[in-house]
Amino acid sequence: MPTDNPSRRIAVIDLGSNTARLVLLSAEPGSTYRQIDEIREVVRLRKGMTDEGLAEDAVQRAFSTLSLFKRFCDSRRVDEILAVATSAVRDAANGPALIASVERDIGLSIKILPGEREAYYGVLGVLNEVPVEDGYVLDIGGGSAQVSEVCERRYDSEYEAIKKEVQRQIESVPKAKGKRPLAGLGGTIRNLATVEAERSNYPLNTLHGFSLSRKELVKTIRKLRRLPLARREHIPGLNRDRADIILPGAMVAREVMDRLGVKKMQVSEGGLREGLFHERFLSDQADPIVSDIRAFSVLNLARNYGYDQSHSEQVRHLAGRLFDQTMPLHGYGPEERVLLDAAALLHDLGMVIGYTSHHKHSQTLIEHSGLPGYTPRESALIALLTRYHRKGKPDTSEYRDLLNRGDTKRLTCLAALLRTAEYLERERNSIVADVKVTWDKKHLRISLVAEAHPSVEIWQAEQHAVPLLESVFNLTVVFDSLTPSGTPTQK
Amino acid sequence: MPTDNPSRRIAVIDLGSNTARLVLLSAEPGSTYRQIDEIREVVRLRKGMTDEGLAEDAVQRAFSTLSLFKRFCDSRRVDEILAVATSAVRDAANGPALIASVERDIGLSIKILPGEREAYYGVLGVLNEVPVEDGYVLDIGGGSAQVSEVCERRYDSEYEAIKKEVQRQIESVPKAKGKRPLAGLGGTIRNLATVEAERSNYPLNTLHGFSLSRKELVKTIRKLRRLPLARREHIPGLNRDRADIILPGAMVAREVMDRLGVKKMQVSEGGLREGLFHERFLSDQADPIVSDIRAFSVLNLARNYGYDQSHSEQVRHLAGRLFDQTMPLHGYGPEERVLLDAAALLHDLGMVIGYTSHHKHSQTLIEHSGLPGYTPRESALIALLTRYHRKGKPDTSEYRDLLNRGDTKRLTCLAALLRTAEYLERERNSIVADVKVTWDKKHLRISLVAEAHPSVEIWQAEQHAVPLLESVFNLTVVFDSLTPSGTPTQK
Repeated sequence: MPTDNPSRRIAVIDLGSNTARLVLLSAEPGSTYRQIDEIREVVRLRKGMTDEGLAEDAVQRAFSTLSLFKRFCDSRRVDEILAVATSAVRDAANGPALIASVERDIGLSIKILPGEREAYYGVLGVLNEVPVEDGYVLDIGGGSAQVSEVCERRYDSEYEAIKKEVQRQIESVPKAKGKRPLAGLGGTIRNLATVEAERSNYPLNTLHGFSLSRKELVKTIRKLRRLPLARREHIPGLNRDRADIILPGAMVAREVMDRLGVKKMQVSEGGLREGLFHERFLSDQADPIVSDIRAFSVLNLARNYGYDQSHSEQVRHLAGRLFDQTMPLHGYGPEERVLLDAAALLHDLGMVIGYTSHHKHSQTLIEHSGLPGYTPRESALIALLTRYHRKGKPDTSEYRDLLNRGDTKRLTCLAALLRTAEYLERERNSIVADVKVTWDKKHLRISLVAEAHPSVEIWQAEQHAVPLLESVFNLTVVFDSLTPSGTPTQK
Repeated sequence: MPTDNPSRRIAVIDLGSNTARLVLLSAEPGSTYRQIDEIREVVRLRKGMTDEGLAEDAVQRAFSTLSLFKRFCDSRRVDEILAVATSAVRDAANGPALIASVERDIGLSIKILPGEREAYYGVLGVLNEVPVEDGYVLDIGGGSAQVSEVCERRYDSEYEAIKKEVQRQIESVPKAKGKRPLAGLGGTIRNLATVEAERSNYPLNTLHGFSLSRKELVKTIRKLRRLPLARREHIPGLNRDRADIILPGAMVAREVMDRLGVKKMQVSEGGLREGLFHERFLSDQADPIVSDIRAFSVLNLARNYGYDQSHSEQVRHLAGRLFDQTMPLHGYGPEERVLLDAAALLHDLGMVIGYTSHHKHSQTLIEHSGLPGYTPRESALIALLTRYHRKGKPDTSEYRDLLNRGDTKRLTCLAALLRTAEYLERERNSIVADVKVTWDKKHLRISLVAEAHPSVEIWQAEQHAVPLLESVFNLTVVFDSLTPSGTPTQK
């Protein structure tokens, strides 16, 4: 894990209608980031709100919470604070006065976000996690719902609906323009996803990439309607604080899906706060959109766990070379190559926990952290590839429900290539610069290009990687070693 | 995780009769260490051995393996190599010639360990892990068994028995001198323990502190005797490579236990290689024995995961002060205080995995790494204390079989104190220097000694720690704040 020294600490404060939240992140701008703390307080700003604005009590709650947040930022030596207020303060006549007194008395600058800006940051948080090119983004709050359109991964226009009843919220949702995907953000949608994940024994420990289906949503609605409020909190996965607002939220979600003609919704862990953070984190780019979510999420994970860059890059290089040259034998293509690349960069992640069983720890860490941009199936395959990068017979049974037919064979082939690359880089000194693969009816010949004879690598690869590799291709594996100019190396 | 820069890389090479092993450790001498790599090769040195010594094939296998080990050490930039050979080379007439040629041609210096020295290092590895003051240490190898005596945590004398049949091995074991504890090391004993752990669904993922009972050992022997060799390897936990030698090993273990009059044996993960390493790691001490195994194992774990020392020490200080002052209320003593101290130092361990759910990750890391010197029950309680240091209702059900009556209450009380200390150090700046606790029939008053009013700490403690604390003591908790000179602090 990198020390915090080269990093900046950025706090994102979000003064919402119900809750004030502070998220503390450690970031190397443009490179890597991770959350290091979080603090929240229920402020219920809309309680007692009138045309004249927030009630005196509510103002007091906001003021004292923000004062504590500011102290916390000072004590934790935060380099930068990004603070915003949303609908309650925006709608209140005395909102600007509250913000002015917070600035004057606490020294904390808070921006009141216009509705469109709020929607923009929410969409930004989603776009940096979910691969939506063209489609819709739905945010359900307590008594409000927003649907935004996305074109070519850019926030396009927004439609706001803050109404008391579900039906009126829905009326302002645009009619579907053909089949376009839908992504969802916010606590209500995340919680609906958690309920479905619990019910189906979903095998990953993260919602990144989770797809919420209309069919399962209807099951949840039916279950909620059958139970009185007091018993809803016993539904596995349901957040106690949301027991009262989950049913209208679920109904809004269903109606929006029907209106847009979609059968499922991609769930995003990222939203408003992440969008605010990303604008800062990617401030050197014209658009604060991560250009390749998948590549970024793999690298961010690898860097956060202090990966050995040169070793991992070398394993990726060799695994890719083996994959490309054996394509006529295995028949896989770009989709599998992407999984192999990701697993090569992440294979040693578990070393952060300990050397013993580090391949198992790598799997666990990927299950917990998730890989934004990858589907659950792809994440599961990447996790399994790291699991089998050094030993064991590839086994997919724990993720059975996520995988497709043929994935056990796919995993086994990719694991054999990754394992071969790993043992050809056993001394972690990039001694094997390249591989050249040829074959006949009986043999798979792997010529290692190296300045010196890679004895340790051949010994270890023969012992630990060759058995799996031979079983995959049904060929006898033979290694030899050549200098870059093509002459055999001396032992 | 600390970077390797201030650390030394030490390789321990052990040329055994059956296997040659290399363990690579990263160590800051006298402070902390962790294993970072391991490599092994089956050499079967006794195959074809005659009175003239090791067979030519065996010499070749040893030579080429050691040559690869040496290359590996060079590539991995090892600072120091500790290399030893044991019984096969020691017993072989041509052993010294092999060692000389390895030194001359490979540049690797190997020490042939006399039997007594081998036993010494094995005992050293055990003593730095298992709290045996006076007692016996048993090492079972393939066809050999050694029992050593320990007096006042020092290696005393050794009895060696290398015999073909179990009974003759046993005859040289000393008669019991009263009831003294027995510790066991080596692959056979570890594997017998793993078999028992699998059978009983042992809930920890490490054998540190595991106690192998005679009763369960007899069950394993009975099961082994009923099964033909080919089917033994399907016994859960049994190492396939040991299926052939596990039965005589188990019988030796039982006979030794009977002869010494003990009903159980403490299993040690550490042995010869760890002993060799510790002699180097603790080279500034007269005796290479860790003076306090428990304190060391907690600190080693904390340092390896890059703990925030000042925050953890401060939480330990405050938790200890709360514990000591409320002793008349809870009635617990030094045994519980030790658990609280360890958990305070380790509570944030899981941050290395990620902020989200880090309390759960702390528990997992302790379950995997183990805490040498603590019993499984104590380790489980420490793991649970870290699990409940910030939220959740303390629940012991997953460790039910390890715990004693009253441990749920014990855990709940200690978790309440730890959680209070954690939130009184919420800003991680040691603002609360001390606590003074008083009580009457209705109130528990906690006066916080601080230069400035610790507003964030009181706010957070009231919200997250007070409910549990009040339920434990059945008193209403009240905070106030005083400067070190005793005047109330200003908000």
